[in-house]
Amino acid sequence: MRAIVLGGNGFIGSHVVDALLAGGHTVTVFDRVPDKFRDPLPGVEFFLGDFQDKMAIAEALNGKDAVFHLVSTTFPGTANLDPKADVTGNLIGTLSLIESMNSMGIERLVYLSSGGTVYGPAPGHPIPEDHPLNPINSYGIVKVAIEQYLNMYQKSHGLKPIAIRAANPFGPRQAHTGVQGVISTFLRRIYENEPIEIWGDGQVVRDYLYVEDLADLCVKAAETDYCGAVNAGSGQGRSLLDVIDAISRVTKTPLEPVFKPGRKIDVRYSVLDISWAKTLFDWAPSADFDRALEQTWQWLQNTSS
Amino acid sequence: MRAIVLGGNGFIGSHVVDALLAGGHTVTVFDRVPDKFRDPLPGVEFFLGDFQDKMAIAEALNGKDAVFHLVSTTFPGTANLDPKADVTGNLIGTLSLIESMNSMGIERLVYLSSGGTVYGPAPGHPIPEDHPLNPINSYGIVKVAIEQYLNMYQKSHGLKPIAIRAANPFGPRQAHTGVQGVISTFLRRIYENEPIEIWGDGQVVRDYLYVEDLADLCVKAAETDYCGAVNAGSGQGRSLLDVIDAISRVTKTPLEPVFKPGRKIDVRYSVLDISWAKTLFDWAPSADFDRALEQTWQWLQNTSS
Repeated sequence: MRAIVLGGNGFIGSHVVDALLAGGHTVTVFDRVPDKFRDPLPGVEFFLGDFQDKMAIAEALNGKDAVFHLVSTTFPGTANLDPKADVTGNLIGTLSLIESMNSMGIERLVYLSSGGTVYGPAPGHPIPEDHPLNPINSYGIVKVAIEQYLNMYQKSHGLKPIAIRAANPFGPRQAHTGVQGVISTFLRRIYENEPIEIWGDGQVVRDYLYVEDLADLCVKAAETDYCGAVNAGSGQGRSLLDVIDAISRVTKTPLEPVFKPGRKIDVRYSVLDISWAKTLFDWAPSADFDRALEQTWQWLQNTSS
Repeated sequence: MRAIVLGGNGFIGSHVVDALLAGGHTVTVFDRVPDKFRDPLPGVEFFLGDFQDKMAIAEALNGKDAVFHLVSTTFPGTANLDPKADVTGNLIGTLSLIESMNSMGIERLVYLSSGGTVYGPAPGHPIPEDHPLNPINSYGIVKVAIEQYLNMYQKSHGLKPIAIRAANPFGPRQAHTGVQGVISTFLRRIYENEPIEIWGDGQVVRDYLYVEDLADLCVKAAETDYCGAVNAGSGQGRSLLDVIDAISRVTKTPLEPVFKPGRKIDVRYSVLDISWAKTLFDWAPSADFDRALEQTWQWLQNTSS
């Protein structure tokens, strides 16, 4: 396919680019900024521009037959601070994108949704896709509205959308800023010889998905005719203490986390049921957790030195 | 209470104003236009302005302790044509309103949601409030997002919101434009000696709520401490043929509807379960259907002559 990856210079996007290239696809990247962590890849077309600039998007879309939409103008933890910016940047921006796709006759759209926020308070078991959507923060509310518009445009305009409800992704090229993911945050602090802080007792269970598995799923899904939402997780829940143990092993650093009072917003257990993705796409998460951590740790040391 | 009714010159809003006055409350109206069907009521304060004009809203909110938000910048049937306008007008507009309320310390917000669109494809039984929200059109998607933001601001900022999920309201002062409600449309056509057209076989069942009962519920709900969503329906399903029979009786006009091919979007049965509203607010729909039709018919004849 002739694919365009919106946000293709970002963390997840850059791995989707890799997976597309590995699959023999033609790749264009549209992003606000160049890739922070590597030079432009040969054979890939690059556009720099703003996701909300409809003309720039339309120019980049020209001649493509599949769109991977991995842009988020907000972070899960901070979108609540300015819901109007969240709605304008992400929801209105995505509606503009869909309008452009419609008018240009591009049907295939892979949208990166959020398995950690669209369902709202998690039940005590792995969450299947048909669980009610009860988001409780702005990030999730906007993701759900976008998913519902994707369904609407599927029926009304023949759009062929897939919403990938991703668990917590981690891996090389995840930003060091501390707003993305505990794993990259912890590794960074170890690298800087700073103490690791956790909220609560460390028993909180989450679903950590290696970014290469996520990218692999995005591309495999796009290659099918499937339309709809699908969970992308590791198939396994890990407590924060488990993660810290594994990080300690991999980095060969004894760790004594600083425990801080639990945050009210943290649910105890949030893990995705991924049987649907396995059935649909002949996909399964292949990463060994320790090995994935090791690669992430190696990458961080290489890029920080 | 010192209430402000946003959209208080409109169909439902004007009845909420009446119900508030009947309850001894102080009333301010904010609307884009004057009431089409009656002169300004004595004792009521009026502001004319645009819902999206944040300064105008803030000026009108000053000194109020309850906000009735009945503005919609779109119609259910036409919002799909321009989802971005729907999101900007209604969702962003409501987020601005909430911001203003927060900064002015106003907590009570009664929001008119939509029982006919927030649930999506209706099950074959009266729909309770805890039914999953799966809206399939823009109008419903935006209403759901707004409800979810109301919940979010309840937790984060102490907002005290109620979302009234109204069934199909009808009654005096419903516009004659044909985009609002089958009952006013049918009555208008009879008045104009035009034939009545229906899509499908007329077996489609809906929940028609007399607007005075709806307004009564809005005010009763605001007077409690309840926060959350609540259905507002008639407690009864009526087929289109039932409605036409009743209209024929009331208008003393023999009717032979023109049957047109059914629209794909029409679900067979959509009726709200209203036991929650009855329990919470000591409320019940009191209108007799034929009598309510009669009042609507009288009003139409009086205002059209």
